[in-house]
Amino acid sequence: MPKTSKGDQTRVRILRSARELFAAEAYDRVSVRKIAATAGVDPALINHYFGGKEKLFQEVIADTVDSRIRLDAVKDMLTSTPKDQLGERIIRFAEHLWNSPDGQAYLAAMRHAIASNAEAAVSTVARTVLPLSEYAIGDDPQQEVRSMLLASQLSGLTMMRHIAKIEPMASIDTETLVTAVAPTLQRYINGDIN
Amino acid sequence: MPKTSKGDQTRVRILRSARELFAAEAYDRVSVRKIAATAGVDPALINHYFGGKEKLFQEVIADTVDSRIRLDAVKDMLTSTPKDQLGERIIRFAEHLWNSPDGQAYLAAMRHAIASNAEAAVSTVARTVLPLSEYAIGDDPQQEVRSMLLASQLSGLTMMRHIAKIEPMASIDTETLVTAVAPTLQRYINGDIN
Repeated sequence: MPKTSKGDQTRVRILRSARELFAAEAYDRVSVRKIAATAGVDPALINHYFGGKEKLFQEVIADTVDSRIRLDAVKDMLTSTPKDQLGERIIRFAEHLWNSPDGQAYLAAMRHAIASNAEAAVSTVARTVLPLSEYAIGDDPQQEVRSMLLASQLSGLTMMRHIAKIEPMASIDTETLVTAVAPTLQRYINGDIN
Repeated sequence: MPKTSKGDQTRVRILRSARELFAAEAYDRVSVRKIAATAGVDPALINHYFGGKEKLFQEVIADTVDSRIRLDAVKDMLTSTPKDQLGERIIRFAEHLWNSPDGQAYLAAMRHAIASNAEAAVSTVARTVLPLSEYAIGDDPQQEVRSMLLASQLSGLTMMRHIAKIEPMASIDTETLVTAVAPTLQRYINGDIN
């Protein structure tokens, strides 16, 4: 097995320091200089490896999505469910995920990231999650529109219920939510939308 | 007619300065001291009239909602539409609003407010918009749940299409959107959700 290169190690060290600092302070308060000092590297290397502070921030978020949501598990769930049961399956999966330790850690990171740099946070999540939505729809002449509709309902729900925690949305029970929302998702996946 | 009191004038002056400063800079960069200096008042008066910087920020947002969205016009629209046409009417109204100068100004203010202090921005919008959603549902044993579902679809859509402007959601044409989303809203308003 090849040894990890020195460049890889530096990259990982920068990423780890950035994760800690972005988690502890607002985006504006975390300077490139501070990240570099914490990682024990020259500030120029942050540009070299990541192309600047905003891209590094996005990389930290993408990393969080990847480690907490386990995209492979989501894909497995999507492919192993018959298409006409996906609406209910997806909302149940989401409910289960957001109540798991990984999901809670993800949501906490998201709340912080949105408060810290909303634009970078939202665009990174969209870039990571939208392919999953397309994957759920699969081959379909309206794949793009269906995928956006699915994402719009799920993201509005997640935002109100789990991130902003607006009542009574935050405490509606899962079964009520599933019954109400599954048909919406199912219609966006393969129902009549035009 | 009674003259505007000195207190009212001070309040308005603080609010105006806060609006300018919050629009120009990130939330963290706008100090109570700076707002007070711009308004030409003692910093203690900001606590006196608004209870602190975060509440003043929320007041600025509530003011923006009020002046740009014209809640009375929305209520008129909601009461003058037969309940079984509300789903389509609401999505058409929203599309028209977001393309009007007032709607555009509102969305620009929102993007900035979310980037500046996401938590305060989202909770203020929710507090302002949720009563409209309840108003749309009207008398119903499930008014609260229906209202949250309606708001979840509309907010996810608005966020992706008009605030984060994620493609292809940002450029889907209005008719495609209306056909796809109106039945969802209609079902949340008075359809079978359990």
